[in-house]
Amino acid sequence: MKKLLDDPNEAVTDSLRGLGLAHADILAVRHDPTYVVRASGTPAGRVGVVSGGGSGHEPLHVGFVGEGMLDAAAPGAVFTAPSPDQVAAAVRAADGGAGVVVIVKNYTSDVLNFEVGVEIAEEAGARVATVLVDDDVAVEDSVYTAGRRGVAGTLFAEKIAGAAAARGAGLDEVVAVTERAVSRVRTMGVALTSCTVPQVGRPGFDLPDDEVEIGIGIHGEPGRYRVPAAGAGDICRRLVDAVLDDLALPVGAQVLLLVNGMGGTPSSELYVAYARARDRVEERGLEVARSLVGTFVTSLEMQGVSISVALLDDELTALWDAPVRTAALTW
Amino acid sequence: MKKLLDDPNEAVTDSLRGLGLAHADILAVRHDPTYVVRASGTPAGRVGVVSGGGSGHEPLHVGFVGEGMLDAAAPGAVFTAPSPDQVAAAVRAADGGAGVVVIVKNYTSDVLNFEVGVEIAEEAGARVATVLVDDDVAVEDSVYTAGRRGVAGTLFAEKIAGAAAARGAGLDEVVAVTERAVSRVRTMGVALTSCTVPQVGRPGFDLPDDEVEIGIGIHGEPGRYRVPAAGAGDICRRLVDAVLDDLALPVGAQVLLLVNGMGGTPSSELYVAYARARDRVEERGLEVARSLVGTFVTSLEMQGVSISVALLDDELTALWDAPVRTAALTW
Repeated sequence: MKKLLDDPNEAVTDSLRGLGLAHADILAVRHDPTYVVRASGTPAGRVGVVSGGGSGHEPLHVGFVGEGMLDAAAPGAVFTAPSPDQVAAAVRAADGGAGVVVIVKNYTSDVLNFEVGVEIAEEAGARVATVLVDDDVAVEDSVYTAGRRGVAGTLFAEKIAGAAAARGAGLDEVVAVTERAVSRVRTMGVALTSCTVPQVGRPGFDLPDDEVEIGIGIHGEPGRYRVPAAGAGDICRRLVDAVLDDLALPVGAQVLLLVNGMGGTPSSELYVAYARARDRVEERGLEVARSLVGTFVTSLEMQGVSISVALLDDELTALWDAPVRTAALTW
Repeated sequence: MKKLLDDPNEAVTDSLRGLGLAHADILAVRHDPTYVVRASGTPAGRVGVVSGGGSGHEPLHVGFVGEGMLDAAAPGAVFTAPSPDQVAAAVRAADGGAGVVVIVKNYTSDVLNFEVGVEIAEEAGARVATVLVDDDVAVEDSVYTAGRRGVAGTLFAEKIAGAAAARGAGLDEVVAVTERAVSRVRTMGVALTSCTVPQVGRPGFDLPDDEVEIGIGIHGEPGRYRVPAAGAGDICRRLVDAVLDDLALPVGAQVLLLVNGMGGTPSSELYVAYARARDRVEERGLEVARSLVGTFVTSLEMQGVSISVALLDDELTALWDAPVRTAALTW
């Protein structure tokens, strides 16, 4: 294992320290328990938006703390749900008195720890609503999940929730539009290589030099199937078709197309994948109205990509376009 | 070789196509010869800023075309200088009638092809000034260069030049401030892994599992020396010390600290490296006034990092802070 780390047990803490130092104008890192919060805090009377989950998926979630997106995030150990205490602390930090929306990726341990953490915060007086993200069409149920996994569609949910809160929407309204966003986004990914959890020191799974894994999760969980390493066109067609078969959109629908790198994929390849994915989305009769290409929801240094499609409407488009200023996403 | 590509000979073209489709509001890709230009064009009467070089370093340069940075870029084949025709076309496209500044990384073939390309553009009536970037302290002269190589400091030069041009500075003034930026930035990098040129299909060099290469270039050229794979603290101290020994800044000087991923390094590791680099810069008596952490000047999928330090002054800080809106850098 070669990584730019020191003590593997301190990898998350060291990385958060760098994040805090580099972006002191945007966010602050707190400890005991560990969470990340907007430097300016949640404005009084505004709904707070919180997320979190295992580390190793950066910039998700900590890189999305800031104006127009998350008010706080609870980062667990690598590929490990945050503790209930972390969740409770993040919710309290994000509470501006108008309630808090908590966005949770659908993994069994995340769901459980967020549930307990939210209860702690509620007992202390917070009003909290939880929205579950389960956008991965690759698999139903797994060793990590009951139902579908939450993957790159989480970015869409967090952007929409943050923009709705920034616009001054009430708790019920933020929840409703975030749930609509979740119901309209689907994702599937491919892995070209495995990844190594620092504390483990060896790759999480083996993937031969001449195969790729279609339908991979963001923890290196098994996907749907393996195929011989193929061209970007073939791979992206498989991913887009799986996503669109599930979404079943009417011809002419306007969509957001998100091409997301898994951590170790260079920008040049992401744009090749975007071109191929876009071709396929258009062949299937949809209009790509918005696009995002980059490395956002990752599995450490894994090479690969996920493709998400989200059905837009006027409100979701306006919320997507609204200003955002975070460490990892700014417009 | 596993990459998200189709025909390796079309990798650059396919990637540029994706870039153009994803960012049609910011830039346009032109062919015969190939270059990338701001969608809105250079405003009349404003100095144009052009750069370019081999592909494989994305998002440099094409990802920096847009408001407040480059007006056009000429991307060559992977790790291959653009042709003089590409340079000439980019210069013509960026010419708003007030002259064009061309920023060239110091590699023998880039210098030569830009020289000829600029001559062609000048014969057609353009007024052009060239600024050479040579920020890499690792090596003097190599198979690719006479003198020092141009690496991640190029981002600093392009940002400063673009901001100066956007502010309405004349050609001489843009050249002067860009040259000042170049004279004040130094960089050194480390490779943890090699990288594979698509058309070659095998890694450019071998790096054992237990060694890293200090002072690597952005084409996988050899660095200063190899050491056993060490912790981030040790590596970053070596890089920062080499950079600061060369810059020889007075105690208390305000600097920009740029931690740049080589393509395959996850965000979490970049922030660990940033924390370590910042500690060392401060130990050496300097004040980190501005920071940038991300993947900007790369070697395909190489894992590794480069660290740049730039001495700021009021004007350079203001130009750095000025708005920018490109595919890869926005604030």
